[in-house]
Amino acid sequence: MTKNPWPVPEPQVSHDVHPALAATARAAARAYQEARQLHARSELREEVAQGADGTPTMRVDAIVEEAVATAARRVGVNLLSEEAGFLDHGSAVTLVVDPVDGSANAALGVPLSCFSGAVVVDDRPVEALTVWFDTGRSWWAKAGEPTPFRTSRRTSLDGAAVCLMRPKRGSTDAWLRVADRADRIRVLCTTCLETMLVAEGAVDAFADTGSDTHRLMDLIAASVIVPAAGGALVDLDGRPLVFDVDLSRRWSGIAAATPQLADELITTILG
Amino acid sequence: MTKNPWPVPEPQVSHDVHPALAATARAAARAYQEARQLHARSELREEVAQGADGTPTMRVDAIVEEAVATAARRVGVNLLSEEAGFLDHGSAVTLVVDPVDGSANAALGVPLSCFSGAVVVDDRPVEALTVWFDTGRSWWAKAGEPTPFRTSRRTSLDGAAVCLMRPKRGSTDAWLRVADRADRIRVLCTTCLETMLVAEGAVDAFADTGSDTHRLMDLIAASVIVPAAGGALVDLDGRPLVFDVDLSRRWSGIAAATPQLADELITTILG
Repeated sequence: MTKNPWPVPEPQVSHDVHPALAATARAAARAYQEARQLHARSELREEVAQGADGTPTMRVDAIVEEAVATAARRVGVNLLSEEAGFLDHGSAVTLVVDPVDGSANAALGVPLSCFSGAVVVDDRPVEALTVWFDTGRSWWAKAGEPTPFRTSRRTSLDGAAVCLMRPKRGSTDAWLRVADRADRIRVLCTTCLETMLVAEGAVDAFADTGSDTHRLMDLIAASVIVPAAGGALVDLDGRPLVFDVDLSRRWSGIAAATPQLADELITTILG
Repeated sequence: MTKNPWPVPEPQVSHDVHPALAATARAAARAYQEARQLHARSELREEVAQGADGTPTMRVDAIVEEAVATAARRVGVNLLSEEAGFLDHGSAVTLVVDPVDGSANAALGVPLSCFSGAVVVDDRPVEALTVWFDTGRSWWAKAGEPTPFRTSRRTSLDGAAVCLMRPKRGSTDAWLRVADRADRIRVLCTTCLETMLVAEGAVDAFADTGSDTHRLMDLIAASVIVPAAGGALVDLDGRPLVFDVDLSRRWSGIAAATPQLADELITTILG
């Protein structure tokens, strides 16, 4: 198997971004670039450990997370991350990070994977950043403050552009119900990037149709950025997204252009 | 609805590319960039005409195709394109072009759309180029000559990374059979880009599971580039991909890392 020849540009991060978020995002992009240059796609995909979240860690995850952990320690913030779990660096600030969202894409070279993280103070996410590795594009927001980008404002599912998690055993019927009502569905295999497409109005919604795949770090950036852009980020079963160092917790996340569209998605999925 | 703020970079096209292909690809990228700056997402998506292929033409298609047609006339080659049909400029060379593959993505701002074209001489495609608008990345090959990029060489569907067209009424069962056997499926809604991911080894295969959606311009570049990279480009029902100015012809294209994998996909889809 070959190496991935395409470059990973420097993240486009503004000066207002929290230094810990900016530093970890840059460290992630650099580490991913180096990983692509050093390893064939098959090597990046190899499972090298078991993560703190209970899922296997691919080599690409391990490499990028190590760089993120080093950067967080240097800046002096705590880190809650997918593979390593909670790293206490004695700070009041904790970064909750998915170093590589869309790990399978990142390993193979499907150009849809990203860094995604949020600054948490006193259990509350106050700021978040997502960076698309293959272009350096980034989405950033502070909780409760508006962003320059807006959702599409769509309220109904009929004719909507929807991203879905891939259908998994047990949630196929619900998946097909949504696909049937939407204008056209997409499956990009990267929740953090797909929820940013909701935030900027490129698609109307994203949904896990009930597979309970999402961990805190898959949704925490969207929980800041999507509402700031006018949309809604909810769980299929109404479970609140809470900061918890126990990474065995799972959600079925739904991001939508409006609360009405989120409600209609939930009704359609639950049948 | 907002405008799409992201840039469309200049296509990365080498000096060896046929001047007509290079010129039309550059014209397409420039026109798409301008269209994004001038029009909101909703305007780009508006259906403004009926194409020569029998499907509605979105504004984004019309704008980019006009630029491509102008460039083809200037270079002095004939053009066979999705919306306009056959434009005879008195040349022995015909460009078969999809000015915007992934039109719905291109209109909304889902960053997955591309220019794709092939040089046809005496009814035979001899060279092809596909350019991903959002990054400028390009894939190029001459018929029968090897490329620097290679497919993954995978021969079996179990555990494969597969891109699928979205499920359509009538082909849902076949769609689910493939999704079940593959490791993970993706639906990017841009055949021309997805087949290039097969060519470079990022995914193992792409398939239309029987909806007969593909026109000549959706598959012609892949018919040159995928085999040049070691893979196979076939039709689900064994129909040869032939040059024909009648754009009502349809295929269900399958691109695979190897002929064996293409065969296994066909067997799985036909059930």
